Amino acid sequence: MNDVTEPLRVAVTGAAGNIGYSLLFRLAAGECYGPDQPIILQMLEIPPAMGTLEGVAMELEDCAFPLLKGVEMADDPNRSFKDAHQIFLVGSKPRGPGMERNDLIKENGPIFVGQGQAIEKTAAADVFVITVGNPCNTNAWIAMNNAKGVPRERFTAMTRLDENRAVAQLAAKTGRDTTDVSDMIIWGNHSATQFPDAHNAKVGADRVADLVDDDWLRGEFLTTIQQRGAAIIKARGSSSAASAATAAIDHMRDAWNGTGSRMVSMAVPSDGSYGVPDGTMFSFACRCSGKGAWQIVPGVEFDDFGKEKFAATLAEIQGEAEVVKDLV
Amino acid sequence: MNDVTEPLRVAVTGAAGNIGYSLLFRLAAGECYGPDQPIILQMLEIPPAMGTLEGVAMELEDCAFPLLKGVEMADDPNRSFKDAHQIFLVGSKPRGPGMERNDLIKENGPIFVGQGQAIEKTAAADVFVITVGNPCNTNAWIAMNNAKGVPRERFTAMTRLDENRAVAQLAAKTGRDTTDVSDMIIWGNHSATQFPDAHNAKVGADRVADLVDDDWLRGEFLTTIQQRGAAIIKARGSSSAASAATAAIDHMRDAWNGTGSRMVSMAVPSDGSYGVPDGTMFSFACRCSGKGAWQIVPGVEFDDFGKEKFAATLAEIQGEAEVVKDLV
Repeated sequence: MNDVTEPLRVAVTGAAGNIGYSLLFRLAAGECYGPDQPIILQMLEIPPAMGTLEGVAMELEDCAFPLLKGVEMADDPNRSFKDAHQIFLVGSKPRGPGMERNDLIKENGPIFVGQGQAIEKTAAADVFVITVGNPCNTNAWIAMNNAKGVPRERFTAMTRLDENRAVAQLAAKTGRDTTDVSDMIIWGNHSATQFPDAHNAKVGADRVADLVDDDWLRGEFLTTIQQRGAAIIKARGSSSAASAATAAIDHMRDAWNGTGSRMVSMAVPSDGSYGVPDGTMFSFACRCSGKGAWQIVPGVEFDDFGKEKFAATLAEIQGEAEVVKDLV
Repeated sequence: MNDVTEPLRVAVTGAAGNIGYSLLFRLAAGECYGPDQPIILQMLEIPPAMGTLEGVAMELEDCAFPLLKGVEMADDPNRSFKDAHQIFLVGSKPRGPGMERNDLIKENGPIFVGQGQAIEKTAAADVFVITVGNPCNTNAWIAMNNAKGVPRERFTAMTRLDENRAVAQLAAKTGRDTTDVSDMIIWGNHSATQFPDAHNAKVGADRVADLVDDDWLRGEFLTTIQQRGAAIIKARGSSSAASAATAAIDHMRDAWNGTGSRMVSMAVPSDGSYGVPDGTMFSFACRCSGKGAWQIVPGVEFDDFGKEKFAATLAEIQGEAEVVKDLV
């Protein structure tokens, strides 16, 4: 583990992309690891993007960030992940025209095979990984299974953007502050089958289910969260970048600092909890105790609607694993 | 002045642009005003950009930022500046093909007439303004002169990006950390005539002038800083956004919190210091004592080279004022 004065090596893939651009400067400013933790950014890109990445590195330099002790660039994960403590797997191939989700999964699989192997081979002993690049659950699962020497609990995927979106919608609906909303958990896959479980969420001391009618929670609320990415693209003309970067920071900061009794949504390898087969990369209610340690919160209960949604998203993840089973 | 629990109203113009996108989420995350200061963002755009701005507002909502207590959108500065305490004038017309600097100044002038008038009419009594949109010195000067009821020292323009770039270059050249560099001041106009004065800068206890040869300071160093914007565009394919946002945050945070004995570069209305005519919007060495109060640091000395550079950038600012004299 690092002494607080030693720089933390933070690797970011897809560093010249839009989420990367929204993320790197906030990491360098201390938003994730705090005002006393110096960092070194190790940025990975594909060869055609190295020129753009050079421009990003120049801008990082131009900020003279007090906490930023180095900026490294490479097109080889074995270099970018070398001695890395914290890894943001942001880069992935986007879905092309006419491409089905299974095509996307197959296209991305080999990238995460190589990145998993590089993590095992080169990263720091305490490495902790968030996967943002989609399909993020399956990408994280492929990386994890190609790094058998790394404890599997170091691999996670991001459903925090969905959680944050759900928290904001519940706050708006109930006329309360986002800070009043708790226990709003995303279960399963970061995809259209995700299950945003507002039934167990609270606003202050009140259960959301007692404040808001069930039809809204099962209808408009669910579809708003599931289709929010498309709504952003429609309004802004490009996909969510800054809000995805914010969620990635939230996820990694909570894993690093701990959450106390607060529950957060993280896709992690199942330990068999809630009937999810061991090793499945599934978003659960988690609590974090710091430095990347997390526990799945036991005992959350679901009604029949919740059970059905839970089963559907689990089935989707299992189907995705089937598509890429040759890669693990 | 605000109680710390009352939200600070922070207006940002050009909010749907690239600098705006790099800035807003960091303001909402607490980077500028700290982790205990809630804010309300009041975003201004021109009518054709309101759809994009709607997407930005959706993403801000999707972050569920604990400190963000409201997001407002308008295409009228009288609405966006209403009761605003802190204003970031980021938006301006970019230079079109074949447009000379004087054309750019004339195109932008009327925007800042209207914004100055709106600030006088609607902003909070303690309003403090940074102008980022170029030509920023002259734009700030126009706004200031169209808001005679607002104490003129509340209007400033940004040369901090140039300072940060210079600090980074000096750190790289001397093999030291950026945090070791001090007293690196940008004088005059935020333009190609700016005078980055490394002669008076220090690295630790050493004067830069004793560590680095004069030819480099007067040659490559100067041109690197002056032409850095173009170099970023060439490498990244788009202009500096995240580093400009960082500098704006640095400027406003220092003005808000104070700098102690540290010197920073800010374009402010001259009080006649250093022979700069009273009211000229000129970048000086400043110290800030908090809540927007600043003082020009007296007694910095220049050699003949420095005097010449100082005079040249002053002459340029005076020439720009001549171009828009009908607007004030």
